[in-house]
Amino acid sequence: LSGMLPFRDGSLIMEGKLGRELTVEQGYEAAQMALLNALAVIRSHLGTLGKIRQVVRLVGFVASAEGFVQQPTVINGASDLLAKIFGSAGRHARAAVGVAELPLNAPVEIELIVQVLGTADST
Amino acid sequence: LSGMLPFRDGSLIMEGKLGRELTVEQGYEAAQMALLNALAVIRSHLGTLGKIRQVVRLVGFVASAEGFVQQPTVINGASDLLAKIFGSAGRHARAAVGVAELPLNAPVEIELIVQVLGTADST
Amino acid sequence: LSGMLPFRDGSLIMEGKLGRELTVEQGYEAAQMALLNALAVIRSHLGTLGKIRQVVRLVGFVASAEGFVQQPTVINGASDLLAKIFGSAGRHARAAVGVAELPLNAPVEIELIVQVLGTADST
Repeated sequence: LSGMLPFRDGSLIMEGKLGRELTVEQGYEAAQMALLNALAVIRSHLGTLGKIRQVVRLVGFVASAEGFVQQPTVINGASDLLAKIFGSAGRHARAAVGVAELPLNAPVEIELIVQVLGTADST
Repeated sequence: LSGMLPFRDGSLIMEGKLGRELTVEQGYEAAQMALLNALAVIRSHLGTLGKIRQVVRLVGFVASAEGFVQQPTVINGASDLLAKIFGSAGRHARAAVGVAELPLNAPVEIELIVQVLGTADST
Repeated sequence: LSGMLPFRDGSLIMEGKLGRELTVEQGYEAAQMALLNALAVIRSHLGTLGKIRQVVRLVGFVASAEGFVQQPTVINGASDLLAKIFGSAGRHARAAVGVAELPLNAPVEIELIVQVLGTADST
């Protein structure tokens, strides 16, 4: 999937950097929202989330002010949600990094790779 | 492919950060150049670009000064070129992020994954 | 694999940014350590490193102070080790980028993708 931002109804639910404008709790919420958008893309593409065999990999980019080093806690917003929704199929390799700037001043960007049942490539 | 920088004839066509030394238009041009280098690597490896079945994924890292948030516009330099050259086979998942520094003070680094026809792994 | 940090015995072997607290040589060492941790994860998962058919891709994120542009030299710490251990099977596509901040103030984070012999998916 393309990098997902925390949009809702066409605008970002928050802007700014972790460790400056935004708290860890807000970042966690932004990561949840970005993940929900990723799932919405999958659902609109496949018709259902039931075809997800396994979440494979998640990279979380966190817009980070100088000295902010709690990127993993922020990205847990996405990882915890995957665990709740998919159980063991939601387990994934993960990297969390702090970047200088994200598009539109978004606080979080989520990249997701999932393995899907019954596609031409997997049968 | 490895991360590609906007080299031409052995040196970077420009250096510096978007939002400081460089304009969005220059960044767009740098992303084009990096993408052309990626295609050159593929051509030298496969002998032709005709074996590309589908561009799968592009990540664009943009060296960004404080406050620069137009990473997607910069990386369109690569994406637009893929669309022109490959049509629907050039469509790809994409992420664009703004990073603190890139190798050699490059403004843009492009990571590309393509699916190739008729390799040992795909048959 | 998930993003690996330069841990040893449960703590980071060094903290800080390249180009400020840390030298290129230290960064090289940190990249080696992160790579060794990646191999330890593979060994604990597969029982042996002998099942690695090919290292496919390595992304190295380097916590970089303003103006530090030697990310490739730092990430060579990981790449050189892969070449020594695995020879041609250790060759990989690679990207090295400089990021603002990494988890726990780590200087380097390594993401590794390897192809493994004899898994359900490859037979």
